[in-house]
Amino acid sequence: MPLSPHHLPIDPHLLNAEESLFRFSAVRILTEKLVKPLSAEDMVVQSMEEASPTKWHLAHTTWFHETFILKVFDPDYKIFDPDYHFLFNSYYEAEGPRHPRPHRGLLSRPPLSEIMAYRGHVTAAVQELVGKVAGGKHWRTIAGLIELGCHHEEQHQELLLTDIKHVLSCNPLKPAYKSPYPKEVRKAPDMEWVAFAEGLYEIGHAGDGFAFDCEGPRHKTYLNAFSLASRPVTNGDYLAFMVDGGYKNPALWLSDAWAQIQAEERHAPLYWREKDGGWQVFTLFGEQPVNFDEPASHLSYYEADAFATWAGARLPREAELELALAAAGTTGAVNDLGNGRYHPAVAGKATAGNRLQQLFGDVWEWTATAFAPYPRFKPAPGAIGEYNGKFMCNQFVLRGGSCVTPAGHVRPTYRNFFFPHSQWQFTGIRLAKDL
Amino acid sequence: MPLSPHHLPIDPHLLNAEESLFRFSAVRILTEKLVKPLSAEDMVVQSMEEASPTKWHLAHTTWFHETFILKVFDPDYKIFDPDYHFLFNSYYEAEGPRHPRPHRGLLSRPPLSEIMAYRGHVTAAVQELVGKVAGGKHWRTIAGLIELGCHHEEQHQELLLTDIKHVLSCNPLKPAYKSPYPKEVRKAPDMEWVAFAEGLYEIGHAGDGFAFDCEGPRHKTYLNAFSLASRPVTNGDYLAFMVDGGYKNPALWLSDAWAQIQAEERHAPLYWREKDGGWQVFTLFGEQPVNFDEPASHLSYYEADAFATWAGARLPREAELELALAAAGTTGAVNDLGNGRYHPAVAGKATAGNRLQQLFGDVWEWTATAFAPYPRFKPAPGAIGEYNGKFMCNQFVLRGGSCVTPAGHVRPTYRNFFFPHSQWQFTGIRLAKDL
Amino acid sequence: MPLSPHHLPIDPHLLNAEESLFRFSAVRILTEKLVKPLSAEDMVVQSMEEASPTKWHLAHTTWFHETFILKVFDPDYKIFDPDYHFLFNSYYEAEGPRHPRPHRGLLSRPPLSEIMAYRGHVTAAVQELVGKVAGGKHWRTIAGLIELGCHHEEQHQELLLTDIKHVLSCNPLKPAYKSPYPKEVRKAPDMEWVAFAEGLYEIGHAGDGFAFDCEGPRHKTYLNAFSLASRPVTNGDYLAFMVDGGYKNPALWLSDAWAQIQAEERHAPLYWREKDGGWQVFTLFGEQPVNFDEPASHLSYYEADAFATWAGARLPREAELELALAAAGTTGAVNDLGNGRYHPAVAGKATAGNRLQQLFGDVWEWTATAFAPYPRFKPAPGAIGEYNGKFMCNQFVLRGGSCVTPAGHVRPTYRNFFFPHSQWQFTGIRLAKDL
Amino acid sequence: MPLSPHHLPIDPHLLNAEESLFRFSAVRILTEKLVKPLSAEDMVVQSMEEASPTKWHLAHTTWFHETFILKVFDPDYKIFDPDYHFLFNSYYEAEGPRHPRPHRGLLSRPPLSEIMAYRGHVTAAVQELVGKVAGGKHWRTIAGLIELGCHHEEQHQELLLTDIKHVLSCNPLKPAYKSPYPKEVRKAPDMEWVAFAEGLYEIGHAGDGFAFDCEGPRHKTYLNAFSLASRPVTNGDYLAFMVDGGYKNPALWLSDAWAQIQAEERHAPLYWREKDGGWQVFTLFGEQPVNFDEPASHLSYYEADAFATWAGARLPREAELELALAAAGTTGAVNDLGNGRYHPAVAGKATAGNRLQQLFGDVWEWTATAFAPYPRFKPAPGAIGEYNGKFMCNQFVLRGGSCVTPAGHVRPTYRNFFFPHSQWQFTGIRLAKDL
Repeated sequence: MPLSPHHLPIDPHLLNAEESLFRFSAVRILTEKLVKPLSAEDMVVQSMEEASPTKWHLAHTTWFHETFILKVFDPDYKIFDPDYHFLFNSYYEAEGPRHPRPHRGLLSRPPLSEIMAYRGHVTAAVQELVGKVAGGKHWRTIAGLIELGCHHEEQHQELLLTDIKHVLSCNPLKPAYKSPYPKEVRKAPDMEWVAFAEGLYEIGHAGDGFAFDCEGPRHKTYLNAFSLASRPVTNGDYLAFMVDGGYKNPALWLSDAWAQIQAEERHAPLYWREKDGGWQVFTLFGEQPVNFDEPASHLSYYEADAFATWAGARLPREAELELALAAAGTTGAVNDLGNGRYHPAVAGKATAGNRLQQLFGDVWEWTATAFAPYPRFKPAPGAIGEYNGKFMCNQFVLRGGSCVTPAGHVRPTYRNFFFPHSQWQFTGIRLAKDL
Repeated sequence: MPLSPHHLPIDPHLLNAEESLFRFSAVRILTEKLVKPLSAEDMVVQSMEEASPTKWHLAHTTWFHETFILKVFDPDYKIFDPDYHFLFNSYYEAEGPRHPRPHRGLLSRPPLSEIMAYRGHVTAAVQELVGKVAGGKHWRTIAGLIELGCHHEEQHQELLLTDIKHVLSCNPLKPAYKSPYPKEVRKAPDMEWVAFAEGLYEIGHAGDGFAFDCEGPRHKTYLNAFSLASRPVTNGDYLAFMVDGGYKNPALWLSDAWAQIQAEERHAPLYWREKDGGWQVFTLFGEQPVNFDEPASHLSYYEADAFATWAGARLPREAELELALAAAGTTGAVNDLGNGRYHPAVAGKATAGNRLQQLFGDVWEWTATAFAPYPRFKPAPGAIGEYNGKFMCNQFVLRGGSCVTPAGHVRPTYRNFFFPHSQWQFTGIRLAKDL
Repeated sequence: MPLSPHHLPIDPHLLNAEESLFRFSAVRILTEKLVKPLSAEDMVVQSMEEASPTKWHLAHTTWFHETFILKVFDPDYKIFDPDYHFLFNSYYEAEGPRHPRPHRGLLSRPPLSEIMAYRGHVTAAVQELVGKVAGGKHWRTIAGLIELGCHHEEQHQELLLTDIKHVLSCNPLKPAYKSPYPKEVRKAPDMEWVAFAEGLYEIGHAGDGFAFDCEGPRHKTYLNAFSLASRPVTNGDYLAFMVDGGYKNPALWLSDAWAQIQAEERHAPLYWREKDGGWQVFTLFGEQPVNFDEPASHLSYYEADAFATWAGARLPREAELELALAAAGTTGAVNDLGNGRYHPAVAGKATAGNRLQQLFGDVWEWTATAFAPYPRFKPAPGAIGEYNGKFMCNQFVLRGGSCVTPAGHVRPTYRNFFFPHSQWQFTGIRLAKDL
Repeated sequence: MPLSPHHLPIDPHLLNAEESLFRFSAVRILTEKLVKPLSAEDMVVQSMEEASPTKWHLAHTTWFHETFILKVFDPDYKIFDPDYHFLFNSYYEAEGPRHPRPHRGLLSRPPLSEIMAYRGHVTAAVQELVGKVAGGKHWRTIAGLIELGCHHEEQHQELLLTDIKHVLSCNPLKPAYKSPYPKEVRKAPDMEWVAFAEGLYEIGHAGDGFAFDCEGPRHKTYLNAFSLASRPVTNGDYLAFMVDGGYKNPALWLSDAWAQIQAEERHAPLYWREKDGGWQVFTLFGEQPVNFDEPASHLSYYEADAFATWAGARLPREAELELALAAAGTTGAVNDLGNGRYHPAVAGKATAGNRLQQLFGDVWEWTATAFAPYPRFKPAPGAIGEYNGKFMCNQFVLRGGSCVTPAGHVRPTYRNFFFPHSQWQFTGIRLAKDL
């Protein structure tokens, strides 16, 4: 077992076995709550290679705990089904071959009932293990792995919702995951600009508390003076770009972006559909009229960058957004997964104490920064080291969390990353400017 | 309604309303019986573009009765769900746009329960309609359409089984549709040759009784003297071809065939897998050791043609096989869907009265004849005319039915057709020779 | 050398060495004359996988003589360059691996000058060989191979022109291969119908004279009464189909055809381009206004079939056209390669003695018959046997030759074949009807 | 004309008309010298979408001068051929539609002779224009555009050589662009490490002299202490990685990298071929035995990154390499295009005054930095602004120039960029380490 304790950051209170158990159990329960509105049939479907069936998420998160905790630290653990190691590994090369990602939607078996039994088996086994090993020689490592497994499962909670949203959107019946739709009548406030001074800053995770390996090491970075928009770009802002011929003007687009929107004949965000002269959008509540006061969402990096160019602004750099996030802190109500809204909300008015609305939650904000290792970053050896490091190429960082991001991930140093063409996450735009 | 009575051939006894009702109900019940071993989850999956989800088969066969009978002839018919017209049309351009074929596997909704309710609704409506219209002005046409709808549904019964076999085969768990496996210990008899004389023959459907439009008109065709093998090629025969380097010798293959097996790195029939030095084959009973005495199955036209070349023989022409089928008649036990075996059986010994074993049932036999219209063939106008005519290009005719072909389709004039690369049907080889 | 004399049909007068030499030399010279209007640069380009660069045609035809005659029968033959065996084999698996077809356009080397030297080397060597072996033990076989090589080279003369037409058509400059354009003012005569009686006929090559293996054996075939149109379909006829929405009506198209024209957004024949409200067509004389009285050309089988359906007619069967071709004979002026026009001409009026205009030359006529072996057909063993037999799948027969077909190939039994989507040959339509 | 003078950086001495003319003429002549070893046939071929035919490079560089200088500033300029604007635009959307990039290899016309006449026409016109406008109102802008056009043409000189290398490599004859091969017997020195101190540095172009827009603005960046390898990785070093199973160990590769090498079955650098138990490599001098003391070349970013991981090091950041390049300066002999070697050389021994060998020339060095705009970067409006800005996504920066980079581009601030899978440039590896 190559993981040494210092590779596994952890909130100190989670070294308390009861707290650890409570946290673990709550995460497991929440995942199962999220699938309640779905039928077994819904959970089989894979609508594109990037998205996985719900049933697969249920099993893979369980596989993670089984593989990295139970199989390593519990000599009494009885493997639920030896085939699952092959079926439910996602991308860990160190764990051997696995069922090909594009074929996850072919797995009608094991049936949902067995997957739920698998979940119960592993949940109970971890809970028992904690009872046996808490405070013992490996406890620090095990507690760290439990916490890592919880964060891993939380990431899949978010994907589970964005993936099923995509599945349902492909259905001409446009079925809802949930109802009723949280309709809003508030108007979006005007966009204002908030300035930040030039200087040598530090970013990245340090100190106590959990963070993924890629969030550190904390390090210095120099930033010129800049300003950030007081709120994300709204659907109304984005419509103005569309009406102004945004999708037809190559001067606004990166070369790869223009090639993609030409090839796919894109002329609106994912999930938008023109109908009877107006715009509808597919949501987790079925198809609804577009609310032009809400933050624009499901935009690719390409769209975000083209919009920023059109607006005479730019996308923020990763460090700029972290600076703002760190300054804001996460106090106050955030529209994240815990909120249960599952849809972006209209921004409130900026206040003296809170000049940057919706930094946390609502929509992930694309940064202009390619996902890359921080100075002195070293991935852990073995499978756990594959978690983030091997994706540090061709993807862009997003910050701040969305309306379906678990609360624990809505932290200033959290680095989300997706390919620049990806649209199926709740991804939006906060503009930045040089000063 | 452009269909005139003479376009709809029908067995005279089915003009009797009770017989028609009995036939219709039996077909509907059999379809539902076939899905009994499957879970709702199994029925969602589409494993390749050519194959459809079980649930789609259940719905599309129902759509056929609804669209061509109820909507046309029953002014009181209450449409079950207006969205279904779009969702469950297969390829009838005259019936308007439809859900794209490759996306049938994305439809977790409507759920199975609603599809079964749809089936019940339409079954009952047809049954009621018969009560109202039997013997009336349109009865001849309606009875013909009911019979056409039954034959259509029977075709989908066969596809339902071959499609779910493909779905299950893609699952690393290799689940069985059914059990136990019908193991056999009989040995295959030697292959003998049965001669047919040169002459001007007639083939094609004529007279009373149902047939698809493409089975006629009956017409003259001239055949040279030829002989047919007394039984289909067995797995053992086919293994000899493989062992002799059949898949590595381009001289045996058509040009398009060689390109395909090179590109897909084929070296064995679909569903065969080498394991521990022997061959396993995926069946509707899960993975089993290959029985070398059974008829070889799941072979493409390309494989069938290469095998025949290797064997110093050729594939029969369509007319040659029809001649043999017509001479044999369908008396005697046939291993077709009604038999419930769902797997090819070992051939019996040829007898004086039955020199050609397994002409009917077990495996479809590829002919060397491209599917084309018979002389003076004219498709019906409108959607019904799309049934066969528009596929008369790039496909080859198969004859004689398989172990999952409904009994009613195991008739001498029945023309099945598939693309030469297709492998997922129960398709095999009967050799022919010039005399 | 597995070829026995009877595999190599030959005109008796070509057993005379002088006649053989004259024939061989004339073919070699004509090929070289055809490339005169082209630059070395033109001859390098490959515009699609199906079409080959001019330089490759020059070399491959030479390779054929070298491989099948010189290397086998001339122990003194000095190989021009050992690399050429790999570079210039087309598809003869029996001759070993070869340069991949889609990469023929990457071969800037060997330069044209060396290819011409290769041609000279092989031409001279064959001429010398004839001097040495005429009348000897192998002469019958060698003379047969020379004649086969001549026919092979003639086929490539036609391809050379259709391939360079495609290359030049891809160039926005629309350069001409030749000039001036042979403009015509004649009007096309009305289409009339010529009847043929039902009966048992014989078709296929027999007796003396050269024919490819697939043209035989001569055999009986039964035909119902039918009639053929007196002339091919003109551009004007085809425009009427277009104007009537032909490309937008799925009821007219085969299923595979409809898929193709949808995917490629086809709405006119290959080489047609709308310009300033009229239609231009790319010809070997550059882009010209469409002449609506000329036979329509560069149509796929799919287009030909859809047109025939729209016209309430059908495409002729192969045997029907051979019957007509055989009855007509090839006497009289034919617009073939020898004519030097390189473009279809307007049909003349039907006369009592010649009721079917343009059966030979002008445009190949698609038949409704898939290319398949005639009864008792057996390909020769070895590479020569790959000539036609391995293509007997997925292609359709065309009859009668075109305006770029060498005169020797314009014979009643000649079976040309192409895939149903192919458009780059001079392929047109003669309608047929049942009587 | 939106370009204002300050957008066009220029070496002050090039404001002297004679110097400008001399520079311009020298660049034009060098391009034409580079194609001397090639035939017109060689210059037609396009071997992959990313690479262009030689003839296209000759024409496009000329189009650049014509479009951005002559058409704008010379009212008397007579356009050589109006079709060329469409044919030879590369990617400038602002200049309208253009011939599709993947079809450049279809242009046998215009012939080479006309392209050379086009070159002469434009060269003379620019020379005349200088005579007319030197010192005038627009001279500053025109001189800047001439210099930009020279740099543009120099970039295409490098591409011309790497593209023709790829074309020739695809030919089974493995022809040489040049001979004789510059064989070397020197041994590569051992790899040593050179340390750089932590600090706040400035990078980017500033002050006088030409630079592309993306090289500025000069700005501050903070670097941790690091060290660089004293020489690039050699073929011998790289072979050790291969022998150690480098291509088979997923733990060494980025996720996208592993997917690519699996899909393409990569197991060696581009141009390497195993033969008779040893390794051959295709060079501009034909196929040669690999010299294991030379810098490894034609490696993708993916390969470079995997090698660095295997070696326990990392790739340098862009700023780290610029720091080293700026410290080294370009004094001393550099193996660049001017050197005429056209192949990497074996590194010399590090000396006290020159501890980092081959920073300039030989092979481009991949950095770990995605190509992105420097702080406050703004592209110029209009077509010139498309030069670099629109490519700032999905590509990685390379530094230092190669053995075919024109001398003028071998400067510390020069930012080359390619996609991480690209291999056809002379791209290699210099290792870095954290301190």
